Amino acid sequence: MPILDLLKLPSALLVLLFGFQGWSDEGMWTFDNFPSAQVKRKYGFDPSRGWLEHVQLASARLAQGCSGSFVSSSGLVLTNHHCVQRCLEQLSSEKQDRLSGGFYAQQESDELRCPGLEVDQLLQISDVTARVQSATKGLSGAQFHDAQKAAMAQIEKECTTNRDLRCDVITLYQGGRYQLYQQQRFQDVRIVFAPELEAAHFGGELDNFNFPRYNLDAAFLRVYRDGRPARTEHHFAWSTRPASEGELSFVSGNPGHTHRDLTMAQLEYERDVGLPNTLFRLYEERGWLTEFQTRGAEQRRISTARLLRTENSIKGNKGRLAALGDPAFFGSKAVAERAFRAKIDRQPARRRLYGVAWDAVAASVAALKQIRVRYVALEAAQGFQSELFSFARQLVRASEELPKPNPERLREFADSRLPALTHSLFSPAPIYDELEIESLTHSLSRFREDLGPDDPLVRKLFANSAPRELAETVVRGTKLKEVQLRKSLYDAGKKAVDASEDPMIVLAKTIDPDARAVRKQFEDKVEAPEVKSGELIAKARFEIYGTSIYPDATFSARLSYGAIKGFPEGGKEVTPITSFRGAFERATGKEPFILPKKWLDAKPRLDLDIPLNFCSTNDVIGGNSGSPVINKNAEVTGVIFDGNLASLGGDYGYDGRVNRSIAVHSTAILEALEKIYGATRVAAELRPNPRASGR
Amino acid sequence: MPILDLLKLPSALLVLLFGFQGWSDEGMWTFDNFPSAQVKRKYGFDPSRGWLEHVQLASARLAQGCSGSFVSSSGLVLTNHHCVQRCLEQLSSEKQDRLSGGFYAQQESDELRCPGLEVDQLLQISDVTARVQSATKGLSGAQFHDAQKAAMAQIEKECTTNRDLRCDVITLYQGGRYQLYQQQRFQDVRIVFAPELEAAHFGGELDNFNFPRYNLDAAFLRVYRDGRPARTEHHFAWSTRPASEGELSFVSGNPGHTHRDLTMAQLEYERDVGLPNTLFRLYEERGWLTEFQTRGAEQRRISTARLLRTENSIKGNKGRLAALGDPAFFGSKAVAERAFRAKIDRQPARRRLYGVAWDAVAASVAALKQIRVRYVALEAAQGFQSELFSFARQLVRASEELPKPNPERLREFADSRLPALTHSLFSPAPIYDELEIESLTHSLSRFREDLGPDDPLVRKLFANSAPRELAETVVRGTKLKEVQLRKSLYDAGKKAVDASEDPMIVLAKTIDPDARAVRKQFEDKVEAPEVKSGELIAKARFEIYGTSIYPDATFSARLSYGAIKGFPEGGKEVTPITSFRGAFERATGKEPFILPKKWLDAKPRLDLDIPLNFCSTNDVIGGNSGSPVINKNAEVTGVIFDGNLASLGGDYGYDGRVNRSIAVHSTAILEALEKIYGATRVAAELRPNPRASGR
Repeated sequence: MPILDLLKLPSALLVLLFGFQGWSDEGMWTFDNFPSAQVKRKYGFDPSRGWLEHVQLASARLAQGCSGSFVSSSGLVLTNHHCVQRCLEQLSSEKQDRLSGGFYAQQESDELRCPGLEVDQLLQISDVTARVQSATKGLSGAQFHDAQKAAMAQIEKECTTNRDLRCDVITLYQGGRYQLYQQQRFQDVRIVFAPELEAAHFGGELDNFNFPRYNLDAAFLRVYRDGRPARTEHHFAWSTRPASEGELSFVSGNPGHTHRDLTMAQLEYERDVGLPNTLFRLYEERGWLTEFQTRGAEQRRISTARLLRTENSIKGNKGRLAALGDPAFFGSKAVAERAFRAKIDRQPARRRLYGVAWDAVAASVAALKQIRVRYVALEAAQGFQSELFSFARQLVRASEELPKPNPERLREFADSRLPALTHSLFSPAPIYDELEIESLTHSLSRFREDLGPDDPLVRKLFANSAPRELAETVVRGTKLKEVQLRKSLYDAGKKAVDASEDPMIVLAKTIDPDARAVRKQFEDKVEAPEVKSGELIAKARFEIYGTSIYPDATFSARLSYGAIKGFPEGGKEVTPITSFRGAFERATGKEPFILPKKWLDAKPRLDLDIPLNFCSTNDVIGGNSGSPVINKNAEVTGVIFDGNLASLGGDYGYDGRVNRSIAVHSTAILEALEKIYGATRVAAELRPNPRASGR
Repeated sequence: MPILDLLKLPSALLVLLFGFQGWSDEGMWTFDNFPSAQVKRKYGFDPSRGWLEHVQLASARLAQGCSGSFVSSSGLVLTNHHCVQRCLEQLSSEKQDRLSGGFYAQQESDELRCPGLEVDQLLQISDVTARVQSATKGLSGAQFHDAQKAAMAQIEKECTTNRDLRCDVITLYQGGRYQLYQQQRFQDVRIVFAPELEAAHFGGELDNFNFPRYNLDAAFLRVYRDGRPARTEHHFAWSTRPASEGELSFVSGNPGHTHRDLTMAQLEYERDVGLPNTLFRLYEERGWLTEFQTRGAEQRRISTARLLRTENSIKGNKGRLAALGDPAFFGSKAVAERAFRAKIDRQPARRRLYGVAWDAVAASVAALKQIRVRYVALEAAQGFQSELFSFARQLVRASEELPKPNPERLREFADSRLPALTHSLFSPAPIYDELEIESLTHSLSRFREDLGPDDPLVRKLFANSAPRELAETVVRGTKLKEVQLRKSLYDAGKKAVDASEDPMIVLAKTIDPDARAVRKQFEDKVEAPEVKSGELIAKARFEIYGTSIYPDATFSARLSYGAIKGFPEGGKEVTPITSFRGAFERATGKEPFILPKKWLDAKPRLDLDIPLNFCSTNDVIGGNSGSPVINKNAEVTGVIFDGNLASLGGDYGYDGRVNRSIAVHSTAILEALEKIYGATRVAAELRPNPRASGR
């Protein structure tokens, strides 16, 4: 399940280098630079400007790391089950487990609000490259970083004319283009339907990133406006025709991050340092979470969604490491870089202008190595894995940042970002002390180990208590579980936060000076030179290879094209479409191959030949989870939930022979809604026949 | 603590390539090729043949992965506390925790036998290169492997003239030399003294592989013969003079494995595949073990020694990965290989003879990649981490192997190996179901994941039960906890094992055909070509660089020389000697900086200026733990327990500027025995004054 791996090291970096796409279906294209002519040549269909606009507006982004699509005029959103697992867990209790048991709102009033979820709809793209680049002209290091941050904050603020708009300046082509994405923002998002975990995650971690597959990793949300279902004029119709091999398919979604255009220095860093260290943390986390689950049913319930995310991240990052650890693949990246640089070096003027960029990137990688351990421990998401700590840090920083002028704040406290910040800060989702203590104990142990016992901050934190004692003290002692307290501290500002003796707030205050210091080093010595060099390399790239190329993924709206098609594996060809029949054949009754009782009961009623999952050549990556697969009539034929094993290397390059995306088929979803779950209200809303639709 | 990491992937491989030692103190020398002239030039002392022989005979190997030394004529053995942790745990119970609380036998009759421990004393080295190489002449693949195995088994059998001898054919220089090591074997090994874990492991994982250090990682064993302390004519005298900077020091021990002479293909494999995957398993193990410890005091007690080993392995392997991930270091290895090969290529005859070897190694690495996952899952130690499973597999295989002629058996079932096998198989050490179940559950989960749900063996094993159910069934159901049952099954042989319905035996039998098949692939397609090529590369090496070079470490007796010396770190010089005073200053009273009550009570009586730990330029690696540090008078001045962080890269190369070994000083041990522990019986045995000695 290629959910966007938000835990991964912020990679900032990313430099455009090489993008030969040949005649494969490679590419995660922006909507304003889609290669319609190319699609027409290969597939005989020419997506028009109007078609593209409709697809863009009917697509959705789940701000927490997924994609989705509008599938009715009343705000119904199709996405993956694994994109709403956290919501289902948050809406559960010891007495009612909606993550494992599923959810269906019999009527509109039963639809439950997902704490913290946000859905965005991309309204408009405008180019702001000149404005951003002129702000940083002639600058470097801290000045470059501050000027760029200020320019972006200003542009976003001007664009955000009301609270329902979300404006983001997106960096494309590693700095070759800056674009302003204006989006409609929905923060009242409710769960409508989700199957049982056993059906959604059938095959579990064992089948994850594999094909053939047989699951129902689909769910429905609804966006609300002013307490009522939002009107969504642009939405996709539902296809009820069975999928067929060779069928032209588009995927509209928000691929998270690719690193196809990194320089060799950056790729070496990823292979030797970045990916292994990310994986070490993830494996250790899987170890303790798995063991934590043995404490009892309730502990299992509250940690399942997190364990699934951890396992998914492990598989994804292992696939990335395997790609970079393949000498043939790694060698091909080196060859490509040399060819590109040779072209530049051939013209002295170009060489003077662009030649320095690669060395600058290498220097920034060297700088990153110097500060990596400290940066990850103090500032990256994995430093202190605790929701309560995260609240505390946000409150401490908000109290310092908000009084500053907008352009001078840390990026996530710019005016345009505050609605997202407060939406998660004031989320009423439950928090479990027991899991918080374990998680923070492990984080603090690693923190102490990574910085070493003689680091002054470590001495201060652990002078009187070992990691577990400290974790227990701050988790048990904090009052930040109360939303109202978080709200009042946020509103009261600096004086109140300074005076607060809440132990979690005190912990965040203790760490903050060091964390800010290393963040500044990262921004000035790593990020700034990388973006500055990235702009240069992108310019060279446009000059030499033209502008008909796609940028690396940045969790922004993209469209890919391809066809339903199998792939070769272990000497034989894997066929691209599975059926309900296959699911029943694969079921052993033992995890992870258990089909829910509802499925077994419904079996006689089901048309077992209906296609369940299919794979296609579309170029996708984590973040594309929940993306609609659509045909040329802009009808939804499926929902992307995964890629195959070969697609994991897709982070660094697309191989059309074997890279495949994996989706749940639209007809299977309808069949399940109607015959397994009796979810007639949702099914009717999807059915093409307008008379059948009447929520 | 550089204990030999027995969990590491069997690396077999190892090809001699490059060994320029310059004028540093590099080298883990065999006793029959010690560079006395070199030592004389640098340090003015010329170790004579007699001196070397005495040192060899006074040194000891702990067969489970450590070193030691004889320090009295009555079989007293000095080693590290961390080398006897497992023994202390095995001699503990819920009521008496000797691992954390320490141990002291007031009188000889209180000395307790360590289950499974074996101490070896190297008596004689003889060269068998011609005999081994002539057996494999003109052969390759399976034939090469089988012929070499048969020759070695035959040579060892001829040498083993009584059960108290242990004969091992040792592969040196990656096959450049084969030598027969005849050793006196002691299997009745008893614990005499061990301090508390807090003193031995002061600073814990945080200070591990760091210097300055302040611990008492020392312990005493005694070897017995026929129920009485063995007479050990050759033993080291005890130095009571304080260590001083610049002092010439020898370390005599059994460094486990170095990989300094790997080819680039092998180093790439280690960096990209071998080390990361080893670390993934270790991190996951740390995760679940840490969490398992929270179940309660008893669970903590039975899993502490294992957790310490896991953490130690993590740090060691991370250090190795950091060395290979350093582009400068990795680049220097590539340059060295190119230079060596260029010398070979300059002479057409040499080129024809040796040039093929590197390609053959690369092909064997490619073959290893093909089978790695299956090999690790089915045959390597980490596949099924369960002591009970390990017994079951040994019994199943013994029943098949022992009826075969000696040369045709799997190597570990050759006649010369049986005393070691039965010593561990019939060990009366306690086994804890709860820990066994957790460990096997995690192993089985990984097994299923690595081979995938569609593997026929996986289908067979997990058709009716998930990993945890299976683990519970076999652990709870087996009778193999009873030593007597293991003995009777071993004696009864194949018919009894075939008929056994013990669930753990059944599990081992189910897996064995697949495990043997992949082992054969490994031996024939990976090991054989690597050894064959290793022989070639070693020959070329001797021709070009001469024979005054040392071989990679292979857990056999080695001697290194050096001096007590500090090292530069973070811009300042670390001084090489610490004292008791420093320990008291570092103690915070919070783990891992807690000094035991006995230390705090004894503080007024202690001479706080006595040197506690020191570091030296001696070239050591995991396996050297417990090695004596001796001066030119062959007096023990310390016991090696660690190396500094820089020494971790010592697996791949020695850097004299920063590589340091770390030892507990002899005078500190004596001071502690006398003034902290009142262990006067042991102290008297060590005291140079013969009148004071009277056990």
